[in-house]
Amino acid sequence: MPFSDRLFAAIREKGTPVLAGIDPRAESLPPGFLVGFGADRPSVARAFAAFSRDVIDALAPLVPAVKFQAAFFEALGPEGMIALGDALAYARSRGMLVILDGKRNDIGSTAEAYATAYMGPDGGWEADALTINAYLGVDGIAPFVRAGAEHDTGAFVLVRTSNPSARDLQDLRVGDRPLYRHVADLVTQWGADHRGKSGYSLLGAVVGATYPQELAELREVMPGVVLLVPGYGAQGGTAADVASAFDADGLRAIVNNSRGLAFAYLRKDLAARFGDRWQRAVEAAAIEMIEALASATPAGRLRAPGSNPA
Amino acid sequence: MPFSDRLFAAIREKGTPVLAGIDPRAESLPPGFLVGFGADRPSVARAFAAFSRDVIDALAPLVPAVKFQAAFFEALGPEGMIALGDALAYARSRGMLVILDGKRNDIGSTAEAYATAYMGPDGGWEADALTINAYLGVDGIAPFVRAGAEHDTGAFVLVRTSNPSARDLQDLRVGDRPLYRHVADLVTQWGADHRGKSGYSLLGAVVGATYPQELAELREVMPGVVLLVPGYGAQGGTAADVASAFDADGLRAIVNNSRGLAFAYLRKDLAARFGDRWQRAVEAAAIEMIEALASATPAGRLRAPGSNPA
Repeated sequence: MPFSDRLFAAIREKGTPVLAGIDPRAESLPPGFLVGFGADRPSVARAFAAFSRDVIDALAPLVPAVKFQAAFFEALGPEGMIALGDALAYARSRGMLVILDGKRNDIGSTAEAYATAYMGPDGGWEADALTINAYLGVDGIAPFVRAGAEHDTGAFVLVRTSNPSARDLQDLRVGDRPLYRHVADLVTQWGADHRGKSGYSLLGAVVGATYPQELAELREVMPGVVLLVPGYGAQGGTAADVASAFDADGLRAIVNNSRGLAFAYLRKDLAARFGDRWQRAVEAAAIEMIEALASATPAGRLRAPGSNPA
Repeated sequence: MPFSDRLFAAIREKGTPVLAGIDPRAESLPPGFLVGFGADRPSVARAFAAFSRDVIDALAPLVPAVKFQAAFFEALGPEGMIALGDALAYARSRGMLVILDGKRNDIGSTAEAYATAYMGPDGGWEADALTINAYLGVDGIAPFVRAGAEHDTGAFVLVRTSNPSARDLQDLRVGDRPLYRHVADLVTQWGADHRGKSGYSLLGAVVGATYPQELAELREVMPGVVLLVPGYGAQGGTAADVASAFDADGLRAIVNNSRGLAFAYLRKDLAARFGDRWQRAVEAAAIEMIEALASATPAGRLRAPGSNPA
């Protein structure tokens, strides 16, 4: 089944568009977590894999998809990449869709090699989708689109990112419009021939929650493009800020929260409530986000009677 | 010693600005090379490490630096990443500077994690420099600059790439100038506080050989920025095309050739000359490129009497 159809089925099944981010850092693991592993790089890598499994156990019943940040695993060397493979496979075994946030980019056979690594069954890290960067133009996008079509996977292109300096390049005026609008048009066009039954392409777009006006604008001008929306929570984006990312039925976008979910036990209120049972804090934070999106965005419709085919 | 000073010392010592690219593909390895290894992924990974060592043995006496294409190793899974680490370490042990072509990009602590992985001694792949992508703005560049300052390593930002569709984004007009000119100004500014004794920054720029006019323009407007010039050879760039990348003394740029060197044994003339001794073909192709650059560009000055302090 094409990626967009698989994604929408998963969103409908769980009744929420929450995308849980796993960006592990040694210093943010639950108190005492590292003790059983050790502090050398291979041990921290094993701790990251164990932590990822525990977070996935807490969230798999609640949310449709998980996003891993490749860099934190890469920083641990080959052992980190083995841990990433373990974590990816575990998430898939628990029925979650997996997005690898790697922001890869290159052209031709080099881009194909990245797609082999992350977007299909022949590499070491089989994800359902990969984030990519469009600075190289269509030569750097087409190989990922072809891989997605072959393996029913997807890719999300950086269009308008959630960080403050996104404006350095992305807001430069090209004619009467900012650069990101041109990138949005290109992404829409590059993915147009690869739509699922939903009418949505395997080529999605990353658009930050921290610029609500741009988010609304981009939802409008990118028909058939699924939006991956980072910046919710720690970066400042609220449920109201992301409301415009959805179509009326609550589909067509996924909203990422990383620190706010996987590290929820660092919140004083949740630590006080759950103590050592840190997975309960993760679960509670996810439920809180699910409720916030359900009440302030069209995602609430996903739980209306008759809307859930599962 | 700051990265730019180390790079220029290496260029002076070898008397050439050739950057040898290693982009291994199973189907392009020397005839019979894979037989001793096997065709499964871990075996191909070991073959890539062995091939890289053999290419490095052929080229270490001749050229100052080698560039590895991360994607081809990543496509082989964790075993590929182990092979990449072996190859990187071997190149460094043979006295070559090592550039990892990973085109990484992210912000804040995530960018720091990539820098840890590839730009210092605490990750699994200690390179002297990493290629990066600027679409996220300074938030996505500053962490790499900090890491470079800490570890005497460098980073090369994609400014004007060598592929045909570079124009999709990079040539869009921003005011009266193409986007890549704005990126060039930003890169110059972002790296300005981190110059070596040479006056050149640890933050360099990738500018393709296939657009000679833009290359000349960018050399002019990027004072203090080392240029990494891909696109020589197989992609169509000639020695004359890259002449404008250098300052009058033949420094300030490195010119990459990947297929044309590491896969030189696939050339009919060299295969006929050297037969099974494929490393001799690699060596001959490197000497050919060194001579071409020496006669058609200011790099010839590197071999003038008194120009070589080594």
